[in-house]
Amino acid sequence: MARRRASQFLAGYCCSQSHSLVRRPPLCSQEPASISAPGLPHTHGKATSMFKPPSKLYRKLNSQTSCDIMQVHYSRTYGIHQRSFTSAAINIQRSPSFSKLNSDDIGYFKSMLGDKNVVQDEDRLSAANVDWMRKYKGSSQLLLLPRNTEEVSKILHHCNSRHLAIVPQGGNTGLVGGSVPVYDEVIISLASMDQIISLDKVNGILICEAGCILENLNSFLANEGFIMPLDLGAKGSCQIGGNVSTNAGGLHFIRYGSLHGNILGLEVVLADGTVLDMLGTLRKDNTGYDLKHLFIGSEGSLGIVTKVSILTPPKLLSTNLALLACKDFLSCQKLLLEAKRELGEAISAFEFMDSDAMDMVLAHMDGARNPFPSSSYNFYVLIETTGSDESYDKAKLEAFLLRSMEGGLISDGAIAQDINQASSFWQIREKLMFRKAMCWQGMSEATVKAGAVYKYDLSLPVEKLYDIVEEMRPRLGEKAKVVGYGHLGDGNLHLNIITKQYDNNILAQIEPFVYEWTSTHRGSISAEHGLGLMKADKIHYSKSPETVQLMASIKKLLDPSGILNPYKVLPQSMLQ
Amino acid sequence: MARRRASQFLAGYCCSQSHSLVRRPPLCSQEPASISAPGLPHTHGKATSMFKPPSKLYRKLNSQTSCDIMQVHYSRTYGIHQRSFTSAAINIQRSPSFSKLNSDDIGYFKSMLGDKNVVQDEDRLSAANVDWMRKYKGSSQLLLLPRNTEEVSKILHHCNSRHLAIVPQGGNTGLVGGSVPVYDEVIISLASMDQIISLDKVNGILICEAGCILENLNSFLANEGFIMPLDLGAKGSCQIGGNVSTNAGGLHFIRYGSLHGNILGLEVVLADGTVLDMLGTLRKDNTGYDLKHLFIGSEGSLGIVTKVSILTPPKLLSTNLALLACKDFLSCQKLLLEAKRELGEAISAFEFMDSDAMDMVLAHMDGARNPFPSSSYNFYVLIETTGSDESYDKAKLEAFLLRSMEGGLISDGAIAQDINQASSFWQIREKLMFRKAMCWQGMSEATVKAGAVYKYDLSLPVEKLYDIVEEMRPRLGEKAKVVGYGHLGDGNLHLNIITKQYDNNILAQIEPFVYEWTSTHRGSISAEHGLGLMKADKIHYSKSPETVQLMASIKKLLDPSGILNPYKVLPQSMLQ
Repeated sequence: MARRRASQFLAGYCCSQSHSLVRRPPLCSQEPASISAPGLPHTHGKATSMFKPPSKLYRKLNSQTSCDIMQVHYSRTYGIHQRSFTSAAINIQRSPSFSKLNSDDIGYFKSMLGDKNVVQDEDRLSAANVDWMRKYKGSSQLLLLPRNTEEVSKILHHCNSRHLAIVPQGGNTGLVGGSVPVYDEVIISLASMDQIISLDKVNGILICEAGCILENLNSFLANEGFIMPLDLGAKGSCQIGGNVSTNAGGLHFIRYGSLHGNILGLEVVLADGTVLDMLGTLRKDNTGYDLKHLFIGSEGSLGIVTKVSILTPPKLLSTNLALLACKDFLSCQKLLLEAKRELGEAISAFEFMDSDAMDMVLAHMDGARNPFPSSSYNFYVLIETTGSDESYDKAKLEAFLLRSMEGGLISDGAIAQDINQASSFWQIREKLMFRKAMCWQGMSEATVKAGAVYKYDLSLPVEKLYDIVEEMRPRLGEKAKVVGYGHLGDGNLHLNIITKQYDNNILAQIEPFVYEWTSTHRGSISAEHGLGLMKADKIHYSKSPETVQLMASIKKLLDPSGILNPYKVLPQSMLQ
Repeated sequence: MARRRASQFLAGYCCSQSHSLVRRPPLCSQEPASISAPGLPHTHGKATSMFKPPSKLYRKLNSQTSCDIMQVHYSRTYGIHQRSFTSAAINIQRSPSFSKLNSDDIGYFKSMLGDKNVVQDEDRLSAANVDWMRKYKGSSQLLLLPRNTEEVSKILHHCNSRHLAIVPQGGNTGLVGGSVPVYDEVIISLASMDQIISLDKVNGILICEAGCILENLNSFLANEGFIMPLDLGAKGSCQIGGNVSTNAGGLHFIRYGSLHGNILGLEVVLADGTVLDMLGTLRKDNTGYDLKHLFIGSEGSLGIVTKVSILTPPKLLSTNLALLACKDFLSCQKLLLEAKRELGEAISAFEFMDSDAMDMVLAHMDGARNPFPSSSYNFYVLIETTGSDESYDKAKLEAFLLRSMEGGLISDGAIAQDINQASSFWQIREKLMFRKAMCWQGMSEATVKAGAVYKYDLSLPVEKLYDIVEEMRPRLGEKAKVVGYGHLGDGNLHLNIITKQYDNNILAQIEPFVYEWTSTHRGSISAEHGLGLMKADKIHYSKSPETVQLMASIKKLLDPSGILNPYKVLPQSMLQ
């Protein structure tokens, strides 16, 4: 039987390769993008529009009152009960230490930036005041568009001396309310700083301004034989400065690792306007403290990134994909271990989903079909490899999968054969599974269609990764469906809990349990999205009190007046 | 002709694989270790003993006077004029803010640590007071050996409250005087904290105490199918806590990158005894500022690393080596680019040397023979690949080299065939080139044998890497031989300038020119060795004033009394 199934690897399923696919207009998220084959309906687009509530459901924030922007619920008339990430409203008062903008400030900015780069137009402000999910909304009266580092420096120097709070804004694609004002902070958009400065073609080191859009950088690099070491669903909108400031993870994390390993240098403007030139291009430099890491992932609360130097890997042309079924989570773990050992650095994705997740996709996604209709399996794994030798890479993956099946780690499986078969034979399955982007986006749609959803994005040691799912099931009993899927290779679990409707009693059984459980197992309550406004007061679940205290001390050292992206990242109480 | 030479790749040279070689007792350096085939004389050992001057040449430091420990010159009676790294003596006064050790302090430490862990024995103190090069020597009267984090915390709490300066000491294998006292600092050795705490065998995440010796960790991991992501000549002595604190580079840097990308978590004790638990094991964690990076490479001046969590790659068994000749430096650069593209992540070393370096090896190294005796070439390149499939990996390398030769990037070359041919056919050539460790160590010996040597360890953009060599030659004319070699893949140049004897006029033509040139081209004056005491006052050559100022502010924030490893990393004048 193993041999019969193993032969599937050689003659069975196939799918389009990624570069043949049409990518939708950018989704403003670090979640993988929705991608479909040519001619196919964009089911994600439909779901997105369904997600979007009418504007009347949003509270107009008054800059003088406490904000409660987390409590945006979708109306039952839409059939969806959405309560993402947290149960508690955030009660934050506008800091009395901040000044209010006056005409002298506007005059100064206009004289320095020119009228067109000082935006007071209501429509443009309205767009910049709200995040892409329309979940967080501020009331800024001013958007500034500096064109170079010197202008950013002058803006910050002025704001710091005047105690005017600011929020730096890149592509505004974050998920945690980090890139929009909470009250009347001045929005500093980096969009006009989008120049590529240089590319070292020997070492693949790119230097560019912070406002460069990720996809544009990738297109530029592709012509030179390189790629960016990160790829996000939001690539068409997100900016590299924002990627750095949020330490974006994305689809290639398992292959190329964290930005802490890929960013070689930064130029950053501090709160008082000081320009920190750390724009090195060196792989080795042990001269003093490596301060650039402070700004990677600090969400604009310590300084504004204005230029980036980044190591870009060579563009490799061979991509192979396999969808596999496993009998239990331990097999998934072992398969990951073996894949790392035998496929080595060729792995570019290792994703998993449980059978409940698969069932939900099959039940709720239009056109979805079971990739393994003859049997039911407990877990499904997607492995993607990227290399430089197409025939060898595919043969190597096939041989690995054959061994894994004969060794019992895999119960069933399919490997994509060639690009031509993709658009016909794999149209539907590809939507389901073979593009991980589509797959997990599909998951998200499916879970939402099922009812109210409580969503958690956790980072955990791989050995513990699925335990929280298994603990949550008996805890919640029949009244909830608990689903687990995510980036196994990165230790990143998407835990979704679906109920018929939103219920405070159920929520009380989930939270703070899920945070406490994650904390007990030394996990992270935010694998890649950051803390922003949404989880600023939850940092203690993942970081020790002493560490958080030192973070607050460093914030006060670098930004004594607290003007940089206030109310975000750290609990407000620690900074007053 | 190209075809004839290309056939060499398939039938020609061969060498031992690394694991068949005898590694010398640990050299206390980040320089690659000297390795020789069984039965061969250890020429490096001979050179090392020649390097070691009689103790009478060292000044006994008086803790009340200025120190001038850089001015240790080798006597002319030894035929060597050695003046490494810098021209200026360091004039530092013992900080008057530090207390002197008293009997109450000793009593406290004995009561807390036990008598045997409070070392006052002169011989043991003598060993801990001097670095392995015998270049830097302090006069500490006390060595403490804490056994756990709590004891480190209590020691620091006491020292901080008493204003007693301390120096943390790992394997004491540094090259810049960072791990020995300058005056009477209390030495805190981490040697007793050498426990492996856990290994996540799915993700290869190791947690251990800071005092674990690198080679021991690697041996432990090898049994589990993993390796440490760094490998140094000092591996038999250096400790992982010291590796982290100095951001050690080493031989695998081109493959696995910086420790900033591989360290997942740290436990650190701050100056006041506060324990910072940042010992995460997660690949993704975006909850607040990633403070562990502050301590990676801060040379013990911000805190003492007590535990380490590190991502360890799978152990791959297939290693291939090729020695190649190139007509010019541009070909070396292009070859690097092509190798990265075509060999991808399989590359584990890419080294180069110029013909002057080769000539010097041939002229001064006993038993050295020209690997390409029929012709003379301007540059030589060593490529090492490591992978999981021996036959494929070798075939892939051979195909790449064939293409490169046909394309004109390579003028000649040889690839090792199998392990059995090594000890007979490649004995001599291997010493020269095929073990990069031997090769570059051989270089170091050869340059020293030639006369007085001015040595610089620079990090530069690859495109500029060799320009400094070419600029230096006409600048110095006939009176000096300028030699360039190093880790091209990492942008790390070893610039050696050899003259018949030490001469202040020549030195004045080299310095500060070499530092200024490096600074102008945004290079680093310390690629991997750190600043320590040796280059603390030279940091401005590689970092902007604003950046250095912020470093000083952070030092003051974390260590207000300045007790942690004083006089190191930053200019003393900035911390007073």
